Amino acid sequence: MSGLDALLRPKSVAVVGASTDLTKTGGRPVGYLVRHGFAGDVWPVNPRATEIAGLRCFPDVASLPGAPDVGIVLVGPDRAEQALRDLAAKGCKAAIVLAGGYGETGEDGAAKQARLRAACGTMRLLGPNTIGLVNLADRIVLSATGALEFEDLPAGGLSVVSQSGGILGALLSRGAAAGIGFARLVATGNEGDIEAAEVLDHLVDDPATRCIALYLEGIRNPAAFRRAARRAAAAGKPVVVFKVGRSEAGALAAISHTGAMAGADRMYDAFFASLGVIRVERFADLLEVSAALAGDRRAAGFRVAVLTSTGGAGALVADATGLAGGTLPPLDPPTATRIGALIGEAVAGNPVDVTLAGVRPDLFRGAITALLDSPSYDQLVVIVGSSALAQPTLVADAILEARAGSTKPVIAYVSPHAPHIAAGLNSRGVPASTTPEGIAAILSALARPAPALAPEAPAETLDLPAGPMDEAEAKRLFARYGITPVREAVARTAEAAQAAAAGLGDRLVVKILARDIAHKSDIGGVALRVAPADVGATAATLLARIPQAEGVLVQEMVAGGVEMILGLIRDPHLGTAVLLGAGGTAAEIFGDTALRMLPLSPGEAAAMVRGLKAHRLLAGFRGAPPADEAALVDAVLAFAGMGEALGDRLVEAEINPLFVLPAGQGVRAADGVAILA
Amino acid sequence: MSGLDALLRPKSVAVVGASTDLTKTGGRPVGYLVRHGFAGDVWPVNPRATEIAGLRCFPDVASLPGAPDVGIVLVGPDRAEQALRDLAAKGCKAAIVLAGGYGETGEDGAAKQARLRAACGTMRLLGPNTIGLVNLADRIVLSATGALEFEDLPAGGLSVVSQSGGILGALLSRGAAAGIGFARLVATGNEGDIEAAEVLDHLVDDPATRCIALYLEGIRNPAAFRRAARRAAAAGKPVVVFKVGRSEAGALAAISHTGAMAGADRMYDAFFASLGVIRVERFADLLEVSAALAGDRRAAGFRVAVLTSTGGAGALVADATGLAGGTLPPLDPPTATRIGALIGEAVAGNPVDVTLAGVRPDLFRGAITALLDSPSYDQLVVIVGSSALAQPTLVADAILEARAGSTKPVIAYVSPHAPHIAAGLNSRGVPASTTPEGIAAILSALARPAPALAPEAPAETLDLPAGPMDEAEAKRLFARYGITPVREAVARTAEAAQAAAAGLGDRLVVKILARDIAHKSDIGGVALRVAPADVGATAATLLARIPQAEGVLVQEMVAGGVEMILGLIRDPHLGTAVLLGAGGTAAEIFGDTALRMLPLSPGEAAAMVRGLKAHRLLAGFRGAPPADEAALVDAVLAFAGMGEALGDRLVEAEINPLFVLPAGQGVRAADGVAILA
Repeated sequence: MSGLDALLRPKSVAVVGASTDLTKTGGRPVGYLVRHGFAGDVWPVNPRATEIAGLRCFPDVASLPGAPDVGIVLVGPDRAEQALRDLAAKGCKAAIVLAGGYGETGEDGAAKQARLRAACGTMRLLGPNTIGLVNLADRIVLSATGALEFEDLPAGGLSVVSQSGGILGALLSRGAAAGIGFARLVATGNEGDIEAAEVLDHLVDDPATRCIALYLEGIRNPAAFRRAARRAAAAGKPVVVFKVGRSEAGALAAISHTGAMAGADRMYDAFFASLGVIRVERFADLLEVSAALAGDRRAAGFRVAVLTSTGGAGALVADATGLAGGTLPPLDPPTATRIGALIGEAVAGNPVDVTLAGVRPDLFRGAITALLDSPSYDQLVVIVGSSALAQPTLVADAILEARAGSTKPVIAYVSPHAPHIAAGLNSRGVPASTTPEGIAAILSALARPAPALAPEAPAETLDLPAGPMDEAEAKRLFARYGITPVREAVARTAEAAQAAAAGLGDRLVVKILARDIAHKSDIGGVALRVAPADVGATAATLLARIPQAEGVLVQEMVAGGVEMILGLIRDPHLGTAVLLGAGGTAAEIFGDTALRMLPLSPGEAAAMVRGLKAHRLLAGFRGAPPADEAALVDAVLAFAGMGEALGDRLVEAEINPLFVLPAGQGVRAADGVAILA
Repeated sequence: MSGLDALLRPKSVAVVGASTDLTKTGGRPVGYLVRHGFAGDVWPVNPRATEIAGLRCFPDVASLPGAPDVGIVLVGPDRAEQALRDLAAKGCKAAIVLAGGYGETGEDGAAKQARLRAACGTMRLLGPNTIGLVNLADRIVLSATGALEFEDLPAGGLSVVSQSGGILGALLSRGAAAGIGFARLVATGNEGDIEAAEVLDHLVDDPATRCIALYLEGIRNPAAFRRAARRAAAAGKPVVVFKVGRSEAGALAAISHTGAMAGADRMYDAFFASLGVIRVERFADLLEVSAALAGDRRAAGFRVAVLTSTGGAGALVADATGLAGGTLPPLDPPTATRIGALIGEAVAGNPVDVTLAGVRPDLFRGAITALLDSPSYDQLVVIVGSSALAQPTLVADAILEARAGSTKPVIAYVSPHAPHIAAGLNSRGVPASTTPEGIAAILSALARPAPALAPEAPAETLDLPAGPMDEAEAKRLFARYGITPVREAVARTAEAAQAAAAGLGDRLVVKILARDIAHKSDIGGVALRVAPADVGATAATLLARIPQAEGVLVQEMVAGGVEMILGLIRDPHLGTAVLLGAGGTAAEIFGDTALRMLPLSPGEAAAMVRGLKAHRLLAGFRGAPPADEAALVDAVLAFAGMGEALGDRLVEAEINPLFVLPAGQGVRAADGVAILA
């Protein structure tokens, strides 16, 4: 039995510092263990009591009748360390420390937390600063959360890993009230030992868990998280995350222009996306989306039918669905005929409004069946209107009966205040929400194809010196990985520059070469539209003006084409991402960039290109010829491949601008920056 | 007594087509009138019954003992017209028709609806296709909504106007469950006579109404809505609207590039903003934000303190608040000292986390008082954590007691499922929400200053012919209103063009003049960077190539400056808006535009400029000098003033590009389009 197995499914639990007052935080764990039906041994430890909640109480850990699988430590920070030493000495497998005042309070607290960890030896530690865990699949509750006041906590396929105990309580109580059943809920708190990533990894193999919801404030060990999330994807278990920090002012240290553009939160977006992890935007979606994904229905797409007896609610759902990227195709003629015959009125449009026919169960059942049978739709939303307040089972029963004949998802939007209806539907496998945004988030998640993660490639070794490359060297490096540079020649003197000008076209670019100058044009180191005959003189002027110049670069001047920027961003914590954006100032000013984590799949590279607003420029804007989009996708993949192959050796890499020429003519890297470690 | 007065506060109500089965739609209105305590006369009309719900039933309208103030018509569409004629003949003041199948079904339905209206004569009509109205201030319910099944419907200061009956039921039932009290709720349905705007106007003068929430699918009469909303603003009554159609595919007919850029929904945004109407994005915000605004507390700003005993929920609220534009200033030292002394632990940061001190009412009360006293904060959010499930009054009582000593708003975020706590707080004037986004929306709304609407200006007459102007004429028109054009001269021949070149600088622009060609550059009608000596030859070439040219325009070529686009967009329905965006392709590709309705105030013009992403270009980007932002604001105001002054005569007007020169040097209109009607 591993430490995590023991923690989640103990046969015996010692509760150190158990209070005789079961309403207090120190008394609740014993009370809840008993109340929620724990079948194993509960051993309260309290030197000033002989019995707690009808159980024999022990004066100290040494007196326990055996080694407990789990020790819950309820004593304060001053005595927790000793309690852990005692438990470890007794042979306890895992301990839970509820007290706060450790790593979250600063340096002193972090040192105290390190001592806690040390006191555990090989015993595993959950917390400190955690509310514990709740295992509803086995009716084992090792927690003080007030949510355990709810008597009726249904078991189900959804598991939760939360870095906050309060959030665990919120999800558990809100879920229970909404008819959503849970398998395991674990609050990792300060993660003195056991981290969210390890629990996630454990739950991938847990047969009771069908979907995993994560509340995260940060990821301590991205590599472990990445491995666990990739295993979850391979196992077909959806992972849904809500991570705070979207408005965080802190951003990545800018290592280049592109670095300055990508806030840390966008890196988390890229990180989750690369792992097939669904990041939700609203806290309520964490529960609703993951509960829906814990069910067994998935949609083939995002074509949605909405059935309603109240036009307004239908409009709300349609609006939110459209905003989330779904479509509401109109009724196909056979389905319109079928529903029309049923209700005795011609129907049109989608939402399908059956108000006029009156609200009757047979009618709803028939309409639901017809819409589920229609090849026009992947999913169906049924609106529960205010009439359900007078007749609660009317629509709900129709949904439950009719959906049995189909495998498509049916979702319910509950328009009036009717929590019993929503809970009844959720508990029977029909995802129900009271917000249009929640409906849209559920539909969107059910329509997502299973993630196809890019394989991870081995790193290469590179026989090049460390330090910044000059522009020509950088572009030669990029060319090794398949990105064509503009035609150019390096010249160390003005005479050599003039000689190099031949054959590069009738308008040239002359730039200084200087590996220590990041922005050549800011210091007047770039001359554009130079006539071939003037190249030598221009080079002489540049070299005279800028003493750091090690020579000049004479380049063809690309005419036409769409300017892009392509860069790698290394987050010291999360890993490396590719950034693609519209060139010039557009990426920085208008934020029109796409960011994805390595490794990058061809599908992701294509999605990056298509997702830019600047895609309209590539497609041929205002009469311009379409650009070579396929070559741009290849360039993005090549750059990503370079980033993977070179790994930590590549500190910075950017092409700005990358010209995308008309279709069939490829791309040209016109400037490049690279720094090797 | 006006028709609307009679409708909202009748002394007698006839119910035509009342069913003896009080559970049916046709029976509910009589049942609800009685159950919710209507003090006036209820006269059911049904030829097949003698008594309904203990009330005498009349065989027909003619037999009624008097003229009813209101007639509720529950008969189907086939008999509704006759029922209205009977009621009108009896002297009834206002009728409500619940049946659907009219204007919402197409042309035939619209014709039927027109006949309904005609049958009313001078009697006012609510509906058809409405669920009726609910007047809780006077306990008068004239509705079949299932929400009236709730026994306990508290009265309060919030009134609702909804174009959907189902939405009225959703708001009423959700509000009642959340402890939110209502004054009046009116569903206008198909608006065969009484429109949302008229009800809004009526409620401005209603002493029971302190805030008005609107659910809209469209606005039939924008002028009436504008008048009513301006009256509400003047009366200091907040108006909150949720309008569907954000994902509507339909857009304005493109009358210019700028027209193509502004979707109809953005025009609604501009329309509401110009009237000080708060448009909420999420349906749940409609209820929560308007309920908060129905209270009497307002915030001086958006500086928020968050007090929590659970770190996760505090983080959720902080994150959402930051995204909504609020700030969470750190604890000022005196307040930190005060709270620290109270809880016996040093506190820092905001959210202020008092977990370590344990959850005690005196502590919460003291901390709330300290934060409300602090000059660092305008508003306070208190988190109700999962511990409240075990001790429900703990935090709630502390909030209620402590807030009495301050006039600042206190908002509660309820983290676990605890609807009784949220309802208890709402009903006592503490806005409570269960979503972080709801909290942020409430805080944002309470921090909004009272709207300062721009005055409406009278129209001028313009002695110019109808039709498209050429570029020079358009810029002369704009110059009348204060917008400086580039220096330029019109020339009809190549010789005249050469003569005009003197004194315009060392690089010029030569363009064809042609009032029927919208995009001169697309047909090669523009030559840039022309040396003064080459102007004649260039003009000759252009004139020879483009036979429609009526001459050429010789212009100075502006160097430097930031390119913007400034246009007017006429929505045939809602009115005229000013559009300002980054020039070139940025406005169209990146959507970086600001849109505001006329009339425009100086504050709005400045906000348009500041709100653009391109504002960073104006502020001096990458070492460029700051642009003349004040002159740009003046130009936006001048263009808006022109739009107001010329009213319907100005069909289209656009400056693209408008160069914003370095500070102190003003703006220059480099191209212009205008069409007069």
